[in-house]
Amino acid sequence: MLVLITYDVATSSIGGSKRLRHVAKKCVDYGQRVQNSVFECVVDPQQFELLRHSLLKIADLEKDSIRFYFLGSNWQNKVEHYGTKEIVNIEEPIVL
Amino acid sequence: MLVLITYDVATSSIGGSKRLRHVAKKCVDYGQRVQNSVFECVVDPQQFELLRHSLLKIADLEKDSIRFYFLGSNWQNKVEHYGTKEIVNIEEPIVL
Repeated sequence: MLVLITYDVATSSIGGSKRLRHVAKKCVDYGQRVQNSVFECVVDPQQFELLRHSLLKIADLEKDSIRFYFLGSNWQNKVEHYGTKEIVNIEEPIVL
Repeated sequence: MLVLITYDVATSSIGGSKRLRHVAKKCVDYGQRVQNSVFECVVDPQQFELLRHSLLKIADLEKDSIRFYFLGSNWQNKVEHYGTKEIVNIEEPIVL
C-alpha cells in the first residue's frame, strides 16, 4: 500500500533541519521524497508499523506535525503532479 | 471527496511567499490548511476542476511542485495525525 507522509518541521528550531534529514532518510528506505517534506512510501502493514515508530521517535511532537495518508494498493490513479521534480513510479520495474 | 494538495514552493524565489499565500487562500475556500504547504479540500468533481485550474494559474510551474491526492469520500479513516496543529474534522457539524 502507499502511505503518504507529510512532515511539517520547524526548520528554524534547534535541530529542525536535522530532524527533517533523519525523517527523509527513513522514508526513502521505503519510497521517495516527492517534495521537500512529502514522502511516498510503499509498505506492508508491518513495515508501516516500524516506519511510523521510527518517525515518531525522530520528530519533536511538541514542535512538528506529521501526518499519514493511506492511499491503498491502487494508488497510481490517485495522484496528479504538476511542475518541477518529475517523479519516478517506484513500483514500476526499471528497464535497462 | 477529499483532495489532498501538497504545494512545494520555492519561498526564497521572487514571489514564492506570495504564491503560497494565494494558494492557501484558494484552498481554504474548500477546506483547511493542515500543514504549512499541505491542504485538505472537500470538493465535488466540478469544484475540483475549478480549484485545480486556479492553483495551476497561481503556481510557477517552472519553480514549484504541486501534487493532488484523491482520497475519495470515505477518507476519515485514511488519515493519522501526530504532533502540533490539531485539526478539525471539516465535515463534522459544529455543535454550539
